[in-house]
Amino acid sequence: MPTTRRQFIHDVALGTTAFGMGLPLLPKTKDRLGVALVGLGYYSRDLLAPALQLTKSCYLAGIVTGNSQKADEWMKKYKIPAKNVYNYQNFDELAKNPDIDVVYVVLPNHLHREYTERAARAGKHVWCEKPMAPTAADCEAMIKVCKDNKVSLSIGYRMQHEPNTQELIRFGRQKTYGKVKMLTASAGFVAGDSISQAWRGKQSMGGGALFDMGVYSLNAARYAIGEEPVAVSAQKFTTRPAVFKEVDETTLFTLEFPGGAVAQCSTSLGINMNTLHVTAEKGWYRLEPFQSYNGIMGSTSDGKLLNIKTENQQALQMDNDSKAIMAGKAPLVPGEEGWKDIKVVEAIFKSVALEGKRISI
Amino acid sequence: MPTTRRQFIHDVALGTTAFGMGLPLLPKTKDRLGVALVGLGYYSRDLLAPALQLTKSCYLAGIVTGNSQKADEWMKKYKIPAKNVYNYQNFDELAKNPDIDVVYVVLPNHLHREYTERAARAGKHVWCEKPMAPTAADCEAMIKVCKDNKVSLSIGYRMQHEPNTQELIRFGRQKTYGKVKMLTASAGFVAGDSISQAWRGKQSMGGGALFDMGVYSLNAARYAIGEEPVAVSAQKFTTRPAVFKEVDETTLFTLEFPGGAVAQCSTSLGINMNTLHVTAEKGWYRLEPFQSYNGIMGSTSDGKLLNIKTENQQALQMDNDSKAIMAGKAPLVPGEEGWKDIKVVEAIFKSVALEGKRISI
Repeated sequence: MPTTRRQFIHDVALGTTAFGMGLPLLPKTKDRLGVALVGLGYYSRDLLAPALQLTKSCYLAGIVTGNSQKADEWMKKYKIPAKNVYNYQNFDELAKNPDIDVVYVVLPNHLHREYTERAARAGKHVWCEKPMAPTAADCEAMIKVCKDNKVSLSIGYRMQHEPNTQELIRFGRQKTYGKVKMLTASAGFVAGDSISQAWRGKQSMGGGALFDMGVYSLNAARYAIGEEPVAVSAQKFTTRPAVFKEVDETTLFTLEFPGGAVAQCSTSLGINMNTLHVTAEKGWYRLEPFQSYNGIMGSTSDGKLLNIKTENQQALQMDNDSKAIMAGKAPLVPGEEGWKDIKVVEAIFKSVALEGKRISI
Repeated sequence: MPTTRRQFIHDVALGTTAFGMGLPLLPKTKDRLGVALVGLGYYSRDLLAPALQLTKSCYLAGIVTGNSQKADEWMKKYKIPAKNVYNYQNFDELAKNPDIDVVYVVLPNHLHREYTERAARAGKHVWCEKPMAPTAADCEAMIKVCKDNKVSLSIGYRMQHEPNTQELIRFGRQKTYGKVKMLTASAGFVAGDSISQAWRGKQSMGGGALFDMGVYSLNAARYAIGEEPVAVSAQKFTTRPAVFKEVDETTLFTLEFPGGAVAQCSTSLGINMNTLHVTAEKGWYRLEPFQSYNGIMGSTSDGKLLNIKTENQQALQMDNDSKAIMAGKAPLVPGEEGWKDIKVVEAIFKSVALEGKRISI
């Protein structure tokens, strides 16, 4: 092991450091975690890299890409030293690089498991974009490998870090409007026909509306109600069968929760929709949009406005996750949170295949 | 036949009057239709009777009740002559009463067919409250008897007369925001536990959430999309099994439309909810509340407010229906409109019984 810094962070994460019971003590030589982005597509380029210029507890330390031209561009733009640039072959050499504390997996869905496992085995904390993985078994393996290697695992559900969303979650937890009885959550956008050529259009790569956008609706139903669904009924639809040959264009699903609440959720790659509406015993509240990169806002039945501004959602998420790691605490959105969603996703697919039959989860 | 006036109105309704092709010509002796309310429960007492003091094309001419005390109270309050007061035994004698042009059936669901048939056979135009009847076969019989007896049949879906709702319907018809892709419609209120003793709590009387409130969601889905659904998947839930032994407390249903639009609808007698949200290709629009007795209002994605005030919805509906009868035109909401909903309701019950299986309509 080339450095004690990473080891120290691990020790802090486990609460085993000699310095205290998980207190946020760090070596003075490092007050921010180094993050390596794995996969330099749109989300890394336009959202995460700019956000990492704003973060206070972490910074863009490295990149992993199979494209040497992209590597050159990023190295210049973000002053990334060549020693912190990896490709998918030498990825595992990250283990020897003390600059990299966290690997952020921003690859297509079907690669999340492999790169989470490799990162964990390299001793790096892992942030993994949503959806966590194509199957619940994948998720379980990812959680296990991170646990075995004593690294933290966060899922990139940034909405749970967003303050208006957190207010909505508090309404549910504190029963501000009474018990939640019903919610609708709709998340979708219109993808062009070219999606059939992209990973989001391919089943083998874990694409489709439910994986890409449906997890927003699903995650929202779970965080707004604060329980785990016990059954689901679902249907899928398409208006572009030639484009959506392999994956779902539009999926609607109804969730049952043990406390009696029900949720009607929808997702689509052919419909722009972005609403979370919660009905509780004594009133309602909603966010609209509830899952955009900015401008999350909402209102309540008693006239309250939910409109706290966030400078940068991704920066907030990555700073929170970095602070948790440095404090030796569990992240706000651990791997288990992604796994719970994917278990439901599997039940949704099963219900769709059985023409909407109710599937217990 | 004791009078030519009613016959005249029939002739006008059929466009067979010598005076013109369905022109709104009436005998000078009568410029408003006489309405008899059948069933003097809450809706008649608190909504329809007051509305009939505001109507310009009809008035409260008579009542039908099995309760002589109620009869006395109404006669005094509304100056109804004794000759225009009927009970359920002598109901059919209405045929001989020229004061009564329209019979408004405001009875429990399971009695709609019988009193529609008796009214039609008495030669009276019929207004029937929603839901039209417990079965589609009932609805077909009601439509036939009205046709055979040459009387008009309207269903009391007053929202279709409401101007903000009509604006929403126009958005769909004129594709103001493009084609409708998706909608959610939620209609419910919290009924007390005593509902188990009322007709709304009894299966044999056509009670339950879907019949009582679900038809608002269903009707809204149909008028907002402007097509007839081709399939449905549905589930029912209850949090008060001791109260909702016979009928549904909460039913969720998903409708598929031939043009590719989908609708997630919900209804409940245990949840207060009242939202109609329409997502079209180029924007969204909604009404909230969309089915209250007053205060229907809404907004659109481009900042338009839908907030035309209506003095009295029931008066508007009854005036419109009266004018249509006098003009010899089809009513805005004919029996067929109720029948189309009940056909879907039957499919929803079937899907619920099959645990959410997709049922073609």
